Amino acid sequence: MITAESPHHDGSPLYVSDQRPATGAVVSVRVRVPRGSGVGAVHVRTTPDGEQFFTDARLVSREEHEDWWQAEITCHNPVTNYRFLLEGGEEAADGGGQAYRWLNGDGVHPRDVPDTSDFRITTHPAPPAWAQRAVVYQVFPDRFARDAGAEPVGDPGGPRTDLPDWAVPARWDDTVVLDRGNPAQVFGGTLDGVRERLDHLVGLGVDVLYLTPVFPARSNHRYDASTFEAVDPVLGGDAALLRLQEAAHERGIRVMGDITTNHTGDAHEWYAAARRDPDGEFGAWYVRDGEDRGRWVTWLGVESLPKLDHANAGLRARLTEGPQSVIERWLGEGGGFDSWRVDVANMTGRYKGSDLTHVVARETRAAVDRATGGQGLLVAEHTHDHSRDVDGDGWHGVMNYSGFTRPVWTWLRAPGFAPKFLGSPLPVPRLGAELVAETMREFSSIVPWRSWVHSMTLVGSHDTTRIRTLVGEDVEQVKVAAGLLLTMPGIPMITYGDEIGIPGDFGEDGRRPMPWDSQGAGDGRWDEDLAAHYRELIALRRDCPALWGGGMRWLYAEGDVMVFLREHPEQTALVHVARAAHDGVEIPTTQVAGAGAAQGRTPQTAGLDVTGSGVRLAAPGPTVQVWTWATDAPAWEPVPETYRGGW
Amino acid sequence: MITAESPHHDGSPLYVSDQRPATGAVVSVRVRVPRGSGVGAVHVRTTPDGEQFFTDARLVSREEHEDWWQAEITCHNPVTNYRFLLEGGEEAADGGGQAYRWLNGDGVHPRDVPDTSDFRITTHPAPPAWAQRAVVYQVFPDRFARDAGAEPVGDPGGPRTDLPDWAVPARWDDTVVLDRGNPAQVFGGTLDGVRERLDHLVGLGVDVLYLTPVFPARSNHRYDASTFEAVDPVLGGDAALLRLQEAAHERGIRVMGDITTNHTGDAHEWYAAARRDPDGEFGAWYVRDGEDRGRWVTWLGVESLPKLDHANAGLRARLTEGPQSVIERWLGEGGGFDSWRVDVANMTGRYKGSDLTHVVARETRAAVDRATGGQGLLVAEHTHDHSRDVDGDGWHGVMNYSGFTRPVWTWLRAPGFAPKFLGSPLPVPRLGAELVAETMREFSSIVPWRSWVHSMTLVGSHDTTRIRTLVGEDVEQVKVAAGLLLTMPGIPMITYGDEIGIPGDFGEDGRRPMPWDSQGAGDGRWDEDLAAHYRELIALRRDCPALWGGGMRWLYAEGDVMVFLREHPEQTALVHVARAAHDGVEIPTTQVAGAGAAQGRTPQTAGLDVTGSGVRLAAPGPTVQVWTWATDAPAWEPVPETYRGGW
Repeated sequence: MITAESPHHDGSPLYVSDQRPATGAVVSVRVRVPRGSGVGAVHVRTTPDGEQFFTDARLVSREEHEDWWQAEITCHNPVTNYRFLLEGGEEAADGGGQAYRWLNGDGVHPRDVPDTSDFRITTHPAPPAWAQRAVVYQVFPDRFARDAGAEPVGDPGGPRTDLPDWAVPARWDDTVVLDRGNPAQVFGGTLDGVRERLDHLVGLGVDVLYLTPVFPARSNHRYDASTFEAVDPVLGGDAALLRLQEAAHERGIRVMGDITTNHTGDAHEWYAAARRDPDGEFGAWYVRDGEDRGRWVTWLGVESLPKLDHANAGLRARLTEGPQSVIERWLGEGGGFDSWRVDVANMTGRYKGSDLTHVVARETRAAVDRATGGQGLLVAEHTHDHSRDVDGDGWHGVMNYSGFTRPVWTWLRAPGFAPKFLGSPLPVPRLGAELVAETMREFSSIVPWRSWVHSMTLVGSHDTTRIRTLVGEDVEQVKVAAGLLLTMPGIPMITYGDEIGIPGDFGEDGRRPMPWDSQGAGDGRWDEDLAAHYRELIALRRDCPALWGGGMRWLYAEGDVMVFLREHPEQTALVHVARAAHDGVEIPTTQVAGAGAAQGRTPQTAGLDVTGSGVRLAAPGPTVQVWTWATDAPAWEPVPETYRGGW
Repeated sequence: MITAESPHHDGSPLYVSDQRPATGAVVSVRVRVPRGSGVGAVHVRTTPDGEQFFTDARLVSREEHEDWWQAEITCHNPVTNYRFLLEGGEEAADGGGQAYRWLNGDGVHPRDVPDTSDFRITTHPAPPAWAQRAVVYQVFPDRFARDAGAEPVGDPGGPRTDLPDWAVPARWDDTVVLDRGNPAQVFGGTLDGVRERLDHLVGLGVDVLYLTPVFPARSNHRYDASTFEAVDPVLGGDAALLRLQEAAHERGIRVMGDITTNHTGDAHEWYAAARRDPDGEFGAWYVRDGEDRGRWVTWLGVESLPKLDHANAGLRARLTEGPQSVIERWLGEGGGFDSWRVDVANMTGRYKGSDLTHVVARETRAAVDRATGGQGLLVAEHTHDHSRDVDGDGWHGVMNYSGFTRPVWTWLRAPGFAPKFLGSPLPVPRLGAELVAETMREFSSIVPWRSWVHSMTLVGSHDTTRIRTLVGEDVEQVKVAAGLLLTMPGIPMITYGDEIGIPGDFGEDGRRPMPWDSQGAGDGRWDEDLAAHYRELIALRRDCPALWGGGMRWLYAEGDVMVFLREHPEQTALVHVARAAHDGVEIPTTQVAGAGAAQGRTPQTAGLDVTGSGVRLAAPGPTVQVWTWATDAPAWEPVPETYRGGW
């Protein structure tokens, strides 16, 4: 249950003294304990080398409304999991002595719990410092913008005449045609087109441009690459990518590419060589199975996507070893990309009895680090529970579908609309905020804080229903979705056009061309008001350390209302999001001690209604409200000389 | 929350068609859905190769009180995790369409959940078939029994005069002296002494004798072995062990040894060689750390226990490779042991950045399988969350302290007694049955069914408070503990003397000599009535397939009362355990449809009180009651021809 009275800890800088600890480092951690919670002592439990180890915390600050307890833990192993044992509380009814409670990432528990939701600190090298502050804009290259050179002579917006055989040329204003096979409808967007529209991104305030694949392929989505050696000429080729990266950098925007390490297209040069000579070098780069290893294994049985075999060291080297490897060659200034998103990362390197996904992740990460001097971000696609794949030295984070997208959908999808979600046989249910917040909290509790905040949050993507369609008629609900996206932990990712209200029933349907001609035209295809809302929230997030770098502390979640704090050593943000009007909820002063100095930060935010016992939040309708104030927290106490951590 | 109305599935034969599936096998799984639970359809979700995959279940039987749904899953990977998606149920209040629920090992959930508590099937080779039916008796060799040859001449029961220098000889009836350093008090029990008392085990009905270490050492517990090449002459040497094994086998009893793969004693011949030549072969068999790798790492900093370095292939081969390896040479008919318990398995192979514990487990398991033809059991010591260590091809199970011992303690420990538990800084709380059952359910839900039922359950061990002391004055509470031990899933392990009420405040204090002279002497040190209770329950368990091989389905857990079903294809057992008198709880007929034919199986069991709406259970005081009846369940449906599993 989400309750404001609970003691709190999370992995953010207000609660953990070192965000980038080295191996063996001693890190201080602390718990904020609201007055009246009955906690008499605090201990912290770790499991160095697999054995339980307890350290006493000490009371380091007694404030009017709360106590602060601090303890130290030693980063003995690459991943240190820890949770707090809270002494005191209710006497057992039968005189059985004092009970205790555990505090972990999933809240407070009156009984023993497994290590599943322990807090986690990792000593693996940290992601680049810029990443946590980033806001990402996802572009599907075929659908964002053409440049003048790609327009057919005498018919601007008409079907391109310079496309390969497999393509079915479309006019820019055509309807998306759904295709059972490889989607072949090509609208003809280009990388120079993206470059020419970079000011749209600047205006929106995003600072990472994420391009879905740009390698030549035999489909409009290009997840079936025919080579990793060149940018598709249809998009403008290598030179266009380099021009785009240069122009982006001039505007302070980084560029993220999209790579398929799980498979290639069946037109790929490696696969062609493999088919010609299954017993030769390239034959061993693809997974085969069945009698006499005769069958080429493909992604989900889709024949055009043969699966790469990472058990083969030659393949892995080709992908990740050296400046000419696939991962490295496209990275860096003048390389085209600054970061990678990895497609189908949840399956990459996995087949039957062989699970090399962590090896793939580690080697990919090492290549990214080498090529970018540690300035590249590596984000994995993962559509469900990703907890076992993100506590290592591989992916920095994932696309957080399970811990963010799906919960948001269950709160905001329109009552009359029943979308399915990435493979699920049942429509997304519509739930109250309590279950939604519990889902978010549980999924975030099973990964290290660092992975959570370096995972991309999204309210939709090129693979899903568009948020504009998901919420039904009421565009205010899109604003609520954007509110969650831009005030919660994670790296917000906005799919091109979400900010102007592009609709779409599902992934392919939503991949509609960006209607540039509608901007200012009043034809209802470019929602200026919604775009302004996105701009304001993005600007607010980038301006507020609490929003891009603060902790996450739930205060209230029920029905139509969510209230939470983002706490940063410099600044605290109080966020109130409602999907419908409500009469008001009260948050006790013990939780929001500094709120007297709160400043409203969103257009919808009136002065904060501070009462004698707390703050009162109400909403006349769908609402996103943010207040901030300067954080007033005690300084870290030095590590006691008597501290001995583990063995 | 534990509730009788929930649909049910577990990993037992009534619900999973194949307990020993081969790689690639198609296994049928089914869910029993009580009438009135609103379930309209059932789907099963797996994650082959890391991707979500859904299969529809079909309604295969509609009974008066329940529906049965069946689906198939393919064991595509070595571990297949799955859970059920239940369609239907309450309409969302705001017309948002039907909700759904997930059913996993931790119960039913109205929102999305991670994979943590998914059911799990593994295709790794199964444990030996005898193991699930076993009841284990743990003997601490120094304290169980002397043979005539070990008695000092002219002073039976007096201090032995043939002990090594480090030992402090004790009379058999001396009090245990607690020792800060290496416990040196030696009472002088022997393996021939154990052999001569085997009829006590036969009488009790156990069929596995587990001996804590028998290798020479410099302490009475012998976890600091000085060699793995010989049995301690103080215990009678190799020949005594072989005599013991032979005599045990004649009585249908298997013998389990205890091995330290994490460390040796500092008097071990390997460590002596390592100290003589740190840069030589043996120097590399032990973990060193610190400046110039100068410090020998020890278990929890205990200087007498240097830690073995499993990164060294030579060490691993010495332990597990070939008939003369440490693991193999003692196993098999004429070898001395039939199985191994592995000490400190939670730490073995783990140190800082190196985690080879799964390698150690796998290689140890392979050695056990070779030496015993797959008839050996391999159980790991693990005192907390062991979920990440038991889904592989290593340990068959653990000593289930976290999922059984601790929860039982929190239910049964005396109100006035506040024992600590294996390293925890706070006393064990006293909780109601609801929290206790939830703890048990959660810890069991995070491991494969097979690991759960092949883990040893225990209400205490040589390392903990004795159950007789834990529960306080009322010996009836020991009977309740024994009731849980012998009716729940797992391999029950009884520490020598628990059955006669040996007390002990903590581990070492409880290692008291078995008071053979008190048997029948009426001096209060040998509780015949308690022993009879153990005998009856052990006999019942071994006679009831439901108890040794059935599933686990909670029906009720609150305050002083627990009620659950053990369901086996042949037989269903209804178990009612109460720690105090209660007026009665009613279990609805939909859960216990066959109860009309129930037969009482325990002395405390009167006729079952079957009413029109269910069965009514009450207790005049601490109670253990078991009824059984023949299971009436539909036959498995064949796999549909249309079934296609994964890719």
